[in-house]
Amino acid sequence: MIPGKGQGAFPRERGDAMDTAMFDRDLVWEESLEKILELVEEKKFFRARDELVKFNAVEIAELLEEVTEETDIRDTVILFRLLPKDVSVEVFAELPGDDQVDIINGITDRETEFILSEMDFDDKIDVLEELPANIVDKILEKTPKSERRLINTFLNYPENCAGTLMTPDYISLQKDWTVREALDHIKREGMDAETVYTCYVKDTGRKLIGIVSLSTLVITDDDIRVKDIMNTDFVSENVYEDQEEVAADFTRYGFIAIPVVDNEFRLVGIITFDDILDVIEEEATEDIERMAGVIDFDDSDRTYLETSVWQHALNRLPWLLILMVAYVFTGMIITSFEDALSEVISLVAYMPMLMGTGGNTGSQASTLIIRGLATEEVDTGDALKILWKELRIGVLIGTILSAVNFLRVCFLDGHGPMVALTVCGAMLFIVIFAKLIGSMIPLIVKKVKLDPALIANPAISSVSDAVALSIYFLMARLFLGI
Amino acid sequence: MIPGKGQGAFPRERGDAMDTAMFDRDLVWEESLEKILELVEEKKFFRARDELVKFNAVEIAELLEEVTEETDIRDTVILFRLLPKDVSVEVFAELPGDDQVDIINGITDRETEFILSEMDFDDKIDVLEELPANIVDKILEKTPKSERRLINTFLNYPENCAGTLMTPDYISLQKDWTVREALDHIKREGMDAETVYTCYVKDTGRKLIGIVSLSTLVITDDDIRVKDIMNTDFVSENVYEDQEEVAADFTRYGFIAIPVVDNEFRLVGIITFDDILDVIEEEATEDIERMAGVIDFDDSDRTYLETSVWQHALNRLPWLLILMVAYVFTGMIITSFEDALSEVISLVAYMPMLMGTGGNTGSQASTLIIRGLATEEVDTGDALKILWKELRIGVLIGTILSAVNFLRVCFLDGHGPMVALTVCGAMLFIVIFAKLIGSMIPLIVKKVKLDPALIANPAISSVSDAVALSIYFLMARLFLGI
Repeated sequence: MIPGKGQGAFPRERGDAMDTAMFDRDLVWEESLEKILELVEEKKFFRARDELVKFNAVEIAELLEEVTEETDIRDTVILFRLLPKDVSVEVFAELPGDDQVDIINGITDRETEFILSEMDFDDKIDVLEELPANIVDKILEKTPKSERRLINTFLNYPENCAGTLMTPDYISLQKDWTVREALDHIKREGMDAETVYTCYVKDTGRKLIGIVSLSTLVITDDDIRVKDIMNTDFVSENVYEDQEEVAADFTRYGFIAIPVVDNEFRLVGIITFDDILDVIEEEATEDIERMAGVIDFDDSDRTYLETSVWQHALNRLPWLLILMVAYVFTGMIITSFEDALSEVISLVAYMPMLMGTGGNTGSQASTLIIRGLATEEVDTGDALKILWKELRIGVLIGTILSAVNFLRVCFLDGHGPMVALTVCGAMLFIVIFAKLIGSMIPLIVKKVKLDPALIANPAISSVSDAVALSIYFLMARLFLGI
Repeated sequence: MIPGKGQGAFPRERGDAMDTAMFDRDLVWEESLEKILELVEEKKFFRARDELVKFNAVEIAELLEEVTEETDIRDTVILFRLLPKDVSVEVFAELPGDDQVDIINGITDRETEFILSEMDFDDKIDVLEELPANIVDKILEKTPKSERRLINTFLNYPENCAGTLMTPDYISLQKDWTVREALDHIKREGMDAETVYTCYVKDTGRKLIGIVSLSTLVITDDDIRVKDIMNTDFVSENVYEDQEEVAADFTRYGFIAIPVVDNEFRLVGIITFDDILDVIEEEATEDIERMAGVIDFDDSDRTYLETSVWQHALNRLPWLLILMVAYVFTGMIITSFEDALSEVISLVAYMPMLMGTGGNTGSQASTLIIRGLATEEVDTGDALKILWKELRIGVLIGTILSAVNFLRVCFLDGHGPMVALTVCGAMLFIVIFAKLIGSMIPLIVKKVKLDPALIANPAISSVSDAVALSIYFLMARLFLGI
């Protein structure tokens, strides 16, 4: 969280702001980007800087990213160094990891020191996580001992857990304070705290015993004591809780912040909602990519364009290779049926449709279940209900698709009724089985504590292909006697 | 937003809360659920109620949902009516739309009136949107005229726009007030306002001219004037802005609330972050489902299990039927090659693999691009960069898969080198073309202002299947001379 992100505290006030606000911000941003790129092209960095500072930190960071992409990181570094000091710290916090590293390599040690000393603690940790170890060591050398210990603790939390999302900057209140004393304390501490919207009350053993929102403090009379208004029935997260679970709790309860405690229930930090917005988007992206058979081995925040060709290929190959093994079996099923196929070669023309429909209809079911599991709408305990539902959906869809295909095979393709029965009978059963397989595999994968989004699709593809072909050839034997 | 959702103002304080908080809340919740279900089974509603009220409103609503699912909505209505009045209002706001309608049908008009009068304005609108028109009319009759007009305005905003997410309850400040006057005003108004964390300053024409965060007010000296600390460079949304765009701005800037203005830049309401958490999740779910060929025609918040079999079938059929048309072409390609195929029938065994790999590798590319477009990581302007990247990825992956298959065809299946060359040559070009098609179609769909998630997959499936078969048969002609 950058200071002032809650709207209302961007440190600059600008004469032209109102004019801008009246129009479409995105349009203004686009126009300025073009102007800035031109100025950078002509090496008029000071005038480009003047254009930049018309925007807030988030937007300046986005503009600098574009400059890096369109021209060179060196131009970005020059522009960055020309920014007012206070702005540069905020902008730095908003830049992607790669650009942060490049900028640190391009500025002096003193500038790095200044930026890191001014940054919020959780942003600082994010930067240090991205930097090479030797630079981190150099930075830590110059850090006061107490903070160095804290930084090391934070750097050691496993990736994607609550500990890596939290900040140790929060407002602590004493339970015997009056509201007046509490508000005075916030006034003194406030500027440095990550968020002052929720305040925390600890006992003598640093255990969290209650929370008070700033809004409660503001609307309560001055002489009431904190302990009489604090909420003792709060939700907290363990420091090792997975970030996906933390995000689910934010969505579930709609909180602005959630306290993070260690195994002894001692308060170690807080997570604020703005960091969770990114997590929710990241987790959705990860699930979507996994469902399409793309595994992000890199596990970085790199965008599509920033990821190298090699990394892209590496992320996509495993699933394709696993399916190669599955296709050996599909091939064997077809080979064993080769003689019959050459007898009625027209059956081959329907293979893509039957296998494709099986795959598509199966993945419709699996996607709904995988997403339902992720948003906690369904659970492995609902297996029987889901099975019964998908059975009926499968019969319904299978019947309709079969009827449509009966017309096609007989009237469009001009085959006899027996070929039509083979194709349509196969279609009906393939759809039903694909729906059942597609809905059950994610539940089984979830039951054995693996990620359904990761495993389900290759498994469903291979099983449903083999099942589709087997059903098709069985129908051919039944109706055509081959 | 229910009152107190910011943690710290759930209206009850409970002796046993601390014990509960020490343990895993989910576990406690599960145990209580079992106990409540047993008590309901034995018709011991009062004791079930006593168990319920140990939880907060969000959790009580979840428990009641489970009761509805496991037993009967009538039991839920009985339990609901036994809840303390203030709790029942909060719980009601958290229930899903279907349950809200059932409860309103099961309680007296006076109870309905009480609940609706106590609810926050935006929650009330959500409920009224779900209710049948005749019940809405009955409720509106008893509403004061000024509020009735406001309700009608809100009910008339198109679905999924900023207007349906916002609340008119916000804190207005005068620019000439001192901080002390502002805080006193918040103290008087505060309890009823949706959120007090950001306050808004309007000019005499109701135009929004500045915003001040509560934290700024708290940490600023009492005699400073609002106009001297208000931020005039704020981000706002137009009332007709799509909810997806609004969510993107929340993620981009990390705001707690965004003001909503009409075309004349007059403040009409505010949107708070907690309503956006749901939107982000909904939009991700919609995209994921659309990518799998499931279109939610219902556009309701109904979960998988709540959706009827008919609705499920309806949501899934269109895409399957469109593909049926595509498969007619695939069939025609195969039929035109039937004679050659019956000559070298073993070629059929590789068809599923080649078409399947084409589809999978194409959908890997399309998924990354569709998601990239949704999160604004890539843009239609990046088309050339993407094309060049996917070309190289395609060559890399295609070469590796071809090499693996060369070994399979020659040594596992025992075919000659010409069959192997046919299959592997086809594989290489199919992968390359599938990557290019998969990455370009979403960009084209986006360019013509349609939703890439909705259109891209059927288009890619049909094109890539036809391309795969054509390449395969071309290779067969080239290497096998058939």
